[in-house]
Order: sequence, then structure tokens, then C-alpha cells
Amino acid sequence: MAAARHSTLDFMLGAKADGETILKGLQSIFQEEGMTESVHTWQDHGYLATYINKNGRLPPLVRGGAIDRYWPTADGRLVEYDIDEVVYDEDSPYQNIKILHSKQFGNILILNGDVNLAESDLAYTRAIMGSGKEDYTGKDVLILGGGDGGILCEIVKLKPKMVTMVEISFIDQMVIDGCKKYMRKTCGDVLDNLKGDCYQVLIEDCIPVLKRYAKEGREFDYVINDLTAVPISTSPEEDSTWEFLRLILDLSMKVLKQDGKYFTQGNCVNLTEALSLYEEQLGRLYCPVDFSKEIICVPSYLELWVFYTVWKKAKP
Amino acid sequence: MAAARHSTLDFMLGAKADGETILKGLQSIFQEEGMTESVHTWQDHGYLATYINKNGRLPPLVRGGAIDRYWPTADGRLVEYDIDEVVYDEDSPYQNIKILHSKQFGNILILNGDVNLAESDLAYTRAIMGSGKEDYTGKDVLILGGGDGGILCEIVKLKPKMVTMVEISFIDQMVIDGCKKYMRKTCGDVLDNLKGDCYQVLIEDCIPVLKRYAKEGREFDYVINDLTAVPISTSPEEDSTWEFLRLILDLSMKVLKQDGKYFTQGNCVNLTEALSLYEEQLGRLYCPVDFSKEIICVPSYLELWVFYTVWKKAKP
Repeated sequence: MAAARHSTLDFMLGAKADGETILKGLQSIFQEEGMTESVHTWQDHGYLATYINKNGRLPPLVRGGAIDRYWPTADGRLVEYDIDEVVYDEDSPYQNIKILHSKQFGNILILNGDVNLAESDLAYTRAIMGSGKEDYTGKDVLILGGGDGGILCEIVKLKPKMVTMVEISFIDQMVIDGCKKYMRKTCGDVLDNLKGDCYQVLIEDCIPVLKRYAKEGREFDYVINDLTAVPISTSPEEDSTWEFLRLILDLSMKVLKQDGKYFTQGNCVNLTEALSLYEEQLGRLYCPVDFSKEIICVPSYLELWVFYTVWKKAKP
Repeated sequence: MAAARHSTLDFMLGAKADGETILKGLQSIFQEEGMTESVHTWQDHGYLATYINKNGRLPPLVRGGAIDRYWPTADGRLVEYDIDEVVYDEDSPYQNIKILHSKQFGNILILNGDVNLAESDLAYTRAIMGSGKEDYTGKDVLILGGGDGGILCEIVKLKPKMVTMVEISFIDQMVIDGCKKYMRKTCGDVLDNLKGDCYQVLIEDCIPVLKRYAKEGREFDYVINDLTAVPISTSPEEDSTWEFLRLILDLSMKVLKQDGKYFTQGNCVNLTEALSLYEEQLGRLYCPVDFSKEIICVPSYLELWVFYTVWKKAKP
């Protein structure tokens, strides 16, 4: 028996019913009320449903399908993407590599569920290279990460002396293959060979590489950290993440010339606490540094993103 | 009695239950399944609900509240905005004027439910002025619409000869008041007076003004149409909208110098049919024109937007 009493409704189920069954069973009730009901199902994940009156102004949900259109932003908002095709979806021994096509943003590279970059996002690459204010001609550049090849592709156009890119995810040939085939608007032909006249790609963990360079006294004009976003969590158990981040920063400063610049992405502008914690770390490096930040609109992110420039304070 | 049979569920209600009552009644069932259930209600509009398992990755919906965070994009996708404050909400005799605050985009002007512009959206203003490639020094400029004051504010900085802005919505003093108080990052001090050394704001319907100028033989170097988006609907009853759009275009061409430029926004890049129809109209004007288009990322729109430049073909 199911009786509506004031504002609660008691259900008694003849058998165990899961959420999906219940939602299907409800369709007729909402239809009786003249509401358009639509439900999007993730297998084993949950349901998103809209029930809209005639005067409602919400779009109906796009039902089912192999392609997930509903994602969270970094600051935890729900947004729908215009994904219309799964271009590439492979499990390598290391990770899941997905390239999805967005009608407006082009192909989007997603590693283990983490959005890396879309073909529309030259703004990201420009920002992490210093927003067009730097002269890379004849310079020594170190890129940490940068798997999609966008940064490498843009810098080699600017006649640098040498660009070294260290990307552990390239241990996975399938990432290289996926990018050079489907993210070509971003990486150009730079991933067709991992070595060129003015660049080399090292398939290694960046920590030992940085340690080696530091020991050898090797120095760069620019270090670009495109490894990962600033950790979102601020709980104590995440200390090790901050330790790791600081280790990379310290090592990067060690291989950076005294008048060199370090560029990195931060996080979405709304995660102010995580950004403050990151800036705190910058005050705890082995050498004193200054920094500036810039807020950039990266088209496919659907949220504003913070980028940092860090440099060594002038010696007294 | 409510019995689960395979994949459907039959409900019998003891009394008429509305959607909200049903959704509330369902909470315990979803909780039993270990699902987090959250519902967002619009009064008389409908419901948006998520039911998320522990391994789900969707953010919970923000419940209730006076501020609606869930909006459709122009291409009909569901997106959540980080609205945290209603800054201004007044009904004038002409329209509803709302200014909402977004944590990342700043204040957003909304007239009768239509998003006009956010303080973050200088990219919109730059694009509709020709993306920084034009020299406005000593030029005669006509702005149609442009209520938020952004275009006027940016052009007067560039030492034009005279800018005339024709904005009927300024018949509504409350729009001017709202903008000059809460959209100051966009309009600067340009709306404090409706007349300055090199600009004037006419509170009139632009059609009679254009007709008058055409009759007088008055000509401008630039005409900037910031009136409204290209109509989304492509049904026959919308013919009158296209007629209206063509009337404005024809009149604008009449007051445009032979080597002048006409700038306007188009629509979101995904509405390809509406954009094609607009381009068709450009082939049906009284004089032959050429056009180019540019795709711009306007931060608060959460979708890419098309802007047009139109100019008269050289006389043979």
C-alpha cells in the first residue's frame, strides 16, 4: 500500500526494488501530472533525473547511451558536455585512455577519468608558457609532463635551443598513439618522433631526472610543470601530496637559472583554500621565491583556471 | 499496493500525490540502497534529482534556496552556475532586471531571464568590437543596444570622434541604475552621464533612429549590433524575426560607409542551422556584402560563441 499523507508517502514494496526500477515505475505518475520525466543512468553509479512542468525551462536529460555527458567540474558543479562520439577508448596495462569528441571543443583527452585537454584549449597551452610574454628563442626548456604534446608543439615553433620533455605516461605507447592520431590539432607532428632537431622526449619519472640534472648542475631558462593540478583535498592525510609537490618545486628551482621562470597550472579559481595552501608551499622552498598568478578561461573546462609564474628572488 | 515486478513498479496512491511528495517519499528507499539522494525544486517548474551510489562521481545537487543555479545553455545543455548571491532583483514597468553574483564570473546582468553579460566577459566586448584589430581613433561609431555599457566604455577609451549608442531598454531607468551600480567593472563611469565629450546615449527604438540617419545620409565607420542573438527557432512562424533582423541589417548597411565595418554576435557555435539561416539573410540584403566569422570563448557562457564581421563588397 502506498498512501500519500500530507507531505510524505509510504511505500511498501512487494519485492526488493532497486533505484532504477523505482524510477521506471514512477514515470506514469509524473506523466499524469503533465511533467516531462527524463532519467540518465550510470551503470552502478546512480541516476540523474529531471521532472519538468510545461512551464519549466530545464533541458531534458540525454538518456543512457554509451557516452557520459554529465561531469563534475573541479569545484563540484554539475555540467553537461556536448559529447557525441567516443573516438578512442582503450585500457593499456597502465591506465584507461579515452578520447571523446565534443561538438564544440573537438577531441578531449581523458586519462583514467581525468580530463587533460581538448583541441579547443590552446588558451591552456599559451597560459602555461607565460601568455605570449616570453622569448623562447635560443632558450633551454624543461617540460615536466605535458603528455598531450601541446606545449612541446608550441615551443618548438619558437626556435628554442633545446626542449626536454619528461613524460612517464609515454611509457604507455597507447597514449602516444592516441594523441598523435586524434589530438593532432594540439600536438601537430611533434609526437611522430620522440626526438627532433631541438627537442627530446624522455620516457621517465621526472623525479630521478630532476635529481640527475641537479647533481650535474644543469640549468634551464624555463621549467614548465604540466604534471597535475594542485591537490583538492586539504585534509592531513594529504600531507604526502603536498610533500611530493614541494619536492618537485624544490628540484625544479635547483635546475632553474637564477633569472629563469617556472610556469605551472594551479587549480580552478573557486578552490581558494587549495590555492592558498599551494602558495604557502611556495614560501617553504629551499630558496626564496616570488610568484604571480593569472586567471585564464580554458574553453573546455567550463570554469576559470589559475596559472602560476614562479621565479627566484634576486640574490641580496 | 506497490509491487516490484521485474523492471516495473506499480504504485497505487491513497490520495493524489504531487511530484515533490513522491520524491520525498522515495528518500528512504534510496537510502536503503546506500544511495545519496538529492533533489532541487523549482516552484511550479519541476525537479532535478540525483541518486548516487558510493562509487558515483556526480556532485550532489544544491537544494532549494532562492537562487537558481541550474540553467540551460543556448544549445540546450544543463549547466550549474556558482551563483551565491542575488545582488539586484527588481520588476520595472518594462521588464524584470536581475543581477546575480557568480563566485568566479562576478556580477551577471539578466533581463527577463536572458543572460546579457558577466563582469568576466570582456572577451565578448572585445570580440564584438573586432578583436582589437580596429583603430577607433577619430571614428564615427553607432552602437545598437549594448545596455550593459561595456562596448561604449571600451570604445570611448580609444579616442573616437563620436559614439552614438541607441538603447531602448534605457527607457527603463532601473536598468541604467542597476548597471552603473553593480556592473561597474564592465561599464566603468560611462553610464553616470548619458552624454560625454565623445559619446551620446539615445533612449529610443533603433529602427526609427536608423531610418532618420539613412534619410539624412549620415554615415558611420562602424556599426555594432549588440541587440539580440540570432533567433534559435527555425520554424516558419519565426519568419517575422528574420524579417526584423534583415530590416536592421539593411538599415545598418545604409548608414555604413562604403569601407565601414558592421560587427555583431551570432549564436552559440553548436546551433549550426540557425547560423546558416543568418548567413542566408546576409545574401538577401539590398547591397552585396561579404562576411567573416570568429569563434570566441566568453567565460560565463559555458559554450563557444560566434561573432560576425560584415562589410560592403567593393563597387565594381
